[in-house]
Amino acid sequence: MAGLIKPLNNVYEEFRGLPGIGNKSALRLAYHIIDMSEDEVRRLAETLMKAKREIRFCRECFNLTDREVCEICGDENRDHSVICVVEQPQDAMAMERSHGFNGVYHVLHGCLSPLDGIGPEELRIKELLRRLEKGDVKEVILATNSNVEGEATAAYLARVLRPLGVVVSRIARGLPMGGDLEYADEVTLAKALENRTRL
Amino acid sequence: MAGLIKPLNNVYEEFRGLPGIGNKSALRLAYHIIDMSEDEVRRLAETLMKAKREIRFCRECFNLTDREVCEICGDENRDHSVICVVEQPQDAMAMERSHGFNGVYHVLHGCLSPLDGIGPEELRIKELLRRLEKGDVKEVILATNSNVEGEATAAYLARVLRPLGVVVSRIARGLPMGGDLEYADEVTLAKALENRTRL
Repeated sequence: MAGLIKPLNNVYEEFRGLPGIGNKSALRLAYHIIDMSEDEVRRLAETLMKAKREIRFCRECFNLTDREVCEICGDENRDHSVICVVEQPQDAMAMERSHGFNGVYHVLHGCLSPLDGIGPEELRIKELLRRLEKGDVKEVILATNSNVEGEATAAYLARVLRPLGVVVSRIARGLPMGGDLEYADEVTLAKALENRTRL
Repeated sequence: MAGLIKPLNNVYEEFRGLPGIGNKSALRLAYHIIDMSEDEVRRLAETLMKAKREIRFCRECFNLTDREVCEICGDENRDHSVICVVEQPQDAMAMERSHGFNGVYHVLHGCLSPLDGIGPEELRIKELLRRLEKGDVKEVILATNSNVEGEATAAYLARVLRPLGVVVSRIARGLPMGGDLEYADEVTLAKALENRTRL
């Protein structure tokens, strides 16, 4: 930005490159860095480096971990015969927050998106198939997002997995809790009706 | 945040401590850091450290600089007999962007705010008075913000500076360019009327 001294402008440009941070926020953050003590800035910088250095993918499920095998895959109390397939580590975390799942995960690290050049080879699908080879897995729950790419990914996986003799399921689509029928879109309502459960 | 592995949670907490970044943004940024390459994270971390290390206050005007004396104070083509007093370095930068000022600045680093325990001693007022002692300064333009604290700071400075025989002025308050009368507040309108200029 014109008028910013070089080292400050560098900070501004770095922040501007981060997701969800616009020009104004980047400038505000840059000035905030200058207001912080040198110790605070060092701690911030080192925390970023340390996270990047220590965090890797779990050998089993490709979720983020700071060990060889993540906490969930290493937990004997979880049901290793049910695998929940999600697109991103964030999604596995969201599922964990719901406390509704006691199996293990498999993180694809993306979804099929031909327009972006992302095909099955770019996702951790081979690794999922390898996990199924052992024959211990009874069910694979497809928990990809409920948008075009997520649905396509789920449909593709269902086609690939079904011949392996494993139960393949898809998380339910329907009215979100607290959602008003009045404001729900047609596709959601149609899905909610289609997937109705007997009481 | 529950469920985040330690190094990632540390990044999340660091981001959450920055201004204007809430829980969702902090989480998104933390995951983004993991998605970045190690080189990119190192560059980000080092840029922050370098800025904090290299940036200091100009000996003259207390604006941010990476030298002993800032670019503006060191510029022979600027009018050193007119000092524009602002609260923060950001404000000096905003003035520079307007291209309407060819004098030099003095950055107070705050404004009078008794409730926050900020009195004249906490601001760079002594240093301003010292600059005036040389007798080269003809005018001091008070460009503090147009809020309660900014106005109080300007009023205080005017009282202190007037006995020194220097012209003391205050930037105009009025309708902002592009501003609708209909949506302007009463105080702004009253000021705009009071400070009307003859055409």
